[in-house]
Amino acid sequence: MSKNPPHDDDRSAGPRTERPKVRLYLEHPLGKGQHVDVSQDQAHYLLNVMRLRENDVVALFNGRDGEWAARLVDTGKKRATLRVESPTAPQQRPPDLWLLFAPIKKARTDFIVEKAVELGVARIQPVQTEFTNAERIRRDRLQAHAVEAAEQSGGTFVPEVAELESLRRVLARWPEGRVLWWADEGLAGGALAEPAPAPAAILIGPEGGFSPTERARLAALPFVRRLSLGPRILRADTAAVSALTLWQARHGDWGV
Amino acid sequence: MSKNPPHDDDRSAGPRTERPKVRLYLEHPLGKGQHVDVSQDQAHYLLNVMRLRENDVVALFNGRDGEWAARLVDTGKKRATLRVESPTAPQQRPPDLWLLFAPIKKARTDFIVEKAVELGVARIQPVQTEFTNAERIRRDRLQAHAVEAAEQSGGTFVPEVAELESLRRVLARWPEGRVLWWADEGLAGGALAEPAPAPAAILIGPEGGFSPTERARLAALPFVRRLSLGPRILRADTAAVSALTLWQARHGDWGV
Repeated sequence: MSKNPPHDDDRSAGPRTERPKVRLYLEHPLGKGQHVDVSQDQAHYLLNVMRLRENDVVALFNGRDGEWAARLVDTGKKRATLRVESPTAPQQRPPDLWLLFAPIKKARTDFIVEKAVELGVARIQPVQTEFTNAERIRRDRLQAHAVEAAEQSGGTFVPEVAELESLRRVLARWPEGRVLWWADEGLAGGALAEPAPAPAAILIGPEGGFSPTERARLAALPFVRRLSLGPRILRADTAAVSALTLWQARHGDWGV
Repeated sequence: MSKNPPHDDDRSAGPRTERPKVRLYLEHPLGKGQHVDVSQDQAHYLLNVMRLRENDVVALFNGRDGEWAARLVDTGKKRATLRVESPTAPQQRPPDLWLLFAPIKKARTDFIVEKAVELGVARIQPVQTEFTNAERIRRDRLQAHAVEAAEQSGGTFVPEVAELESLRRVLARWPEGRVLWWADEGLAGGALAEPAPAPAAILIGPEGGFSPTERARLAALPFVRRLSLGPRILRADTAAVSALTLWQARHGDWGV
């Protein structure tokens, strides 16, 4: 669950009063009258961190049933039971957009996952490239980070963080009809390409960019489009946010 | 200067060989044949961190004269002298775009400054709002962070980071003809407004958003335009990157 107590809340959001004090993600099905026993960690968070008491209301979501208001009806030393009362937000599903990125330093990898959830992606696929430093990732940790980002950004959907795979293998079994939008630093200063509509994916380069071999392979693939992100060199994490923003504004659910 | 040795380089950039191993920002005028004595810190960085030796070449820029190749011609225990040899990049100037933001947690404030430099802004103005936690900022530290971001992103321009001022005062003496583009979380889900061309500024809300008073004041100002950043709640740092991206793609120097 969110590790941020309210005073530590830096969401760029509306008045505090419009938001529930606490949002929790859980696997449990949600529906009117359901009783939910939260995990020990979540109970500790609700009772000791957020100092909630019986009859306090929290927001629950499970990625499938939308957001629900639930009331603390029974609490113990290390446990808490909530009664689901009424729906507070419909289930949202982001556009069918994937983010492929090469893991970088921990803080910036966490950042990319957090921003992808906020900006709205359906799936996050870490890819191993020739210049990728990370041999492996903590998939479970990144998935938990995605959950926390959804809890804090008011989202009702949590994208899957897939296992790290080699870019070669991901490209080899690329699904038909999905355009891969390659944020190509080689185009810096070139014309801004038009992102392709969903189903789509965005590919962000690793530290040091792609190898010449990888660049040649990408350039030759029919489902790959190249995109310029302006005349300045962007860090991988910046490129991810900028590319997702451009796609959402042009083809996504940003209300254009 | 850049605190990142090359192996720690996560710039999303072209092949490493296309970039100088080291880029240094300094105040000194740059021109062919100039000799430059770098600071002790920079000498330590060049000689001990980057392990450069005499005759090695680095890239220098000062925010005015473009980027120059300079050669290490004399080194001592704690000093280094460079001879400026040839221009390697013209002086760039970003569009006349300001970023106004309310300081948040240190790491995310640093992040906003770094991203603003990468994405290209002319000026960074921290603003104090009713919900801003920070009473003061380390302006010098944020300015140094902007310098480092320019060194690492290959830029030749370093935006000024202004002193923290109250939003009220900034709005009270707003320059004529500059549109202030307000990333209004209250519009979440609304139509994506068209950003205004330069001269322009982007205003990002603080933790918890703007107060009702501030929202009313902003809405009433003739030079303020409201912008929606999609249906999900974005953190302040995400909103900054997304808003700067949308502006650059529509009105900036991203080659559209």
